[in-house]
Amino acid sequence: MAPRTAEIIAVGSELLGATRADTNSLYLSGRLSEIGIDLRIKSVVGDEPGDLATLLRQALDRSDLIVLTGGLGPTDDDLTRDVVSEVLGLPMDVDEAIVAKIRARFERRGLVMPEVNRRQANVPRGAFVLDNPNGTAPGLLIDHAGASGRHIVILLPGPPRELQPMFERVCAGPLGERAGHERAYRTTLFITGRGESHVEQAVQPIYSRWRDASPPISTTILAAMGQIELHLTVRETDDTRARAILDRARDELMAVIAPDVYSIDGRVMEEVVGDLLKARGHTIAAAESCTGGLFTSRLTDVAGSSAYVRGGVVAYANEDKTALLGVPAALLAAHGAVSEPVAVAMAEGIRERTHADVTVGITGIAGPGGGTEAKPVGTVVIAVMVPGRPVYVRTYSFVGGRAMVKFQATQAALDRVRRMLATD
Amino acid sequence: MAPRTAEIIAVGSELLGATRADTNSLYLSGRLSEIGIDLRIKSVVGDEPGDLATLLRQALDRSDLIVLTGGLGPTDDDLTRDVVSEVLGLPMDVDEAIVAKIRARFERRGLVMPEVNRRQANVPRGAFVLDNPNGTAPGLLIDHAGASGRHIVILLPGPPRELQPMFERVCAGPLGERAGHERAYRTTLFITGRGESHVEQAVQPIYSRWRDASPPISTTILAAMGQIELHLTVRETDDTRARAILDRARDELMAVIAPDVYSIDGRVMEEVVGDLLKARGHTIAAAESCTGGLFTSRLTDVAGSSAYVRGGVVAYANEDKTALLGVPAALLAAHGAVSEPVAVAMAEGIRERTHADVTVGITGIAGPGGGTEAKPVGTVVIAVMVPGRPVYVRTYSFVGGRAMVKFQATQAALDRVRRMLATD
Repeated sequence: MAPRTAEIIAVGSELLGATRADTNSLYLSGRLSEIGIDLRIKSVVGDEPGDLATLLRQALDRSDLIVLTGGLGPTDDDLTRDVVSEVLGLPMDVDEAIVAKIRARFERRGLVMPEVNRRQANVPRGAFVLDNPNGTAPGLLIDHAGASGRHIVILLPGPPRELQPMFERVCAGPLGERAGHERAYRTTLFITGRGESHVEQAVQPIYSRWRDASPPISTTILAAMGQIELHLTVRETDDTRARAILDRARDELMAVIAPDVYSIDGRVMEEVVGDLLKARGHTIAAAESCTGGLFTSRLTDVAGSSAYVRGGVVAYANEDKTALLGVPAALLAAHGAVSEPVAVAMAEGIRERTHADVTVGITGIAGPGGGTEAKPVGTVVIAVMVPGRPVYVRTYSFVGGRAMVKFQATQAALDRVRRMLATD
Repeated sequence: MAPRTAEIIAVGSELLGATRADTNSLYLSGRLSEIGIDLRIKSVVGDEPGDLATLLRQALDRSDLIVLTGGLGPTDDDLTRDVVSEVLGLPMDVDEAIVAKIRARFERRGLVMPEVNRRQANVPRGAFVLDNPNGTAPGLLIDHAGASGRHIVILLPGPPRELQPMFERVCAGPLGERAGHERAYRTTLFITGRGESHVEQAVQPIYSRWRDASPPISTTILAAMGQIELHLTVRETDDTRARAILDRARDELMAVIAPDVYSIDGRVMEEVVGDLLKARGHTIAAAESCTGGLFTSRLTDVAGSSAYVRGGVVAYANEDKTALLGVPAALLAAHGAVSEPVAVAMAEGIRERTHADVTVGITGIAGPGGGTEAKPVGTVVIAVMVPGRPVYVRTYSFVGGRAMVKFQATQAALDRVRRMLATD
């Protein structure tokens, strides 16, 4: 059976509250669409066995594939396994191989497996066990023929880092083989340094023609913090043709917005900058004030970044800008901490101390306090020094709360490094 | 009838894609909980009349209040009104007063109302019309007595700025009056430094008794990155009594896990640490290697943190540990960069340079590369110096990918500062 339609049921009372959105279903629906399976309905249900059983029975009545997320933990309120076993009429077995794996996982950390974790080794009879390299709860895949026909029921743990690698293997294996032939192909352009409406104005004349093309290309513009995403989607049966259509479409867009596009292959900004640094054989270091270390932290989120990240200094107080970076006290007194001369002196100070090739100075007012009429909250000065190029320094005005200002400042600084290295 | 349980159905194919989460339901569930109505299930369905009708019938079978969001626009794929009218068996009337309002709205902007907008004046017979000051589609409230009992069905437009003011009026008016007096009261304990199963083992004997108490207190344990959340909920009619019940329950839990609880009032870890620093009049600075600035960045996420954060140094390379922090090269050579003597030397180095009262040194292997048999990926050494207390240093083993290791290391370091200051 090739599943054509899917339903997602997220389990967990915390997902019914006011604070936590179910984000797993976004990832799952994207992957399902890529392998040609339509998502019809997604639901969230609390830790109530009766409600979950009702939802599962209804889902079995109308969809081929049901993906349940969450409720696979070791505690009393983790009831997904039990409900699935009951609804599908499959007796529950204890898989001692799973017990051994969970026990070993605890022992590797010098801990004794609590007895409650044995629950995670309960397996409805006939279920295929999906290994979980990032946690204790294994996933389960059940290929089930019952009164309402044949279904695939997949149980996945809630944490995205456990769920995603597991689902990738399911897509590559049992699910991918069963899926229909027409698939959704996607490409995404990541853009920064322009507002959403400016991107829209530039690209709308291009993508509006694609709607009536054969096959049509659908376009979604998504504004996220500090960037714009432009998603192009085409439904096709042939892989090569689909790729050719999307490549051509992307080239048309690039002709008008290329310098603002920082990634067309899914790499995040810090990876793009890291790859440029590696290609040039450059190291990098930063002197940060208002971003509080976030710039360097983002750079070091990339695996292998120790090859090019020298380090950084976070100097919040003026005396630390002097003590740690050698910014002259007179300069601070004359221009203020949030000023172009100080940002440049910070970039110079960290260069002298680390001998990094590329250096960045960031100083500003993240808010909510500290703003003045001349320098309101959101004012951030960024200086970038790249070998053989004039020093870059600019004063930005960012909007939003403290976290937004911090993120946008690091995004603008990373993007400036990118632009200066790309045209190096 | 006083509705006790609610269901939310969000309508719109765009909400089934990979890019758009249903955020209206977060707002709605918060407001419902405040007026004493439990959200049982929330679902998202595409613009498919058959699927929506099925979901609505099922919701009528089990919930008193059904809130539908979206699908009230003027176009062909806006089908919520039609489906509700059909499922509830209510004939559709055209409300000319609504047509006049929509027409006036267009005219105020110098436009002629397109004929398609007349659809938005369709009203299932007997429905109460909810004015929409921020858009064309009015909302609808239907108090319906049918085969499955009496229900309230509310239809709201999808855009949050249209939906929210409308729902506020419903809460203040018909729904608030109808809602039972019993409300859900919640309290949450945030715990770190223990695994989920260990918390469960410690608290399960306590909360299992609460299930049969009068009123029962329900408990949810939620494992997030680097922390455990313990949610307690009680349904009560009296505010003071509810608070007393939850306070007593919390005290019972605190008696066994108090040192591991870092917050009982919703503050995040970096706020708790910041408040302790302020109370003690202490400043803080950090020397980071594998966490790449994330520790200092988290501290500075808190508004007003410039009062106590001095700054920090990120020293990735060994030579920078020496140049920026004065860690002796001989110490690095003798023990390796990831070692307890080096972590302590980093904490000492940043203390000498910033004169901060509390200093932290973090060095480790975030992975995926760089691990050895003796020091595998996830090995992190944390040193903390607090005035008047012996130097703390410990070697941790964290599991997970690079981002997980970085976060857990900063969480453990913040938590250690918290514990040392709390018992100062």
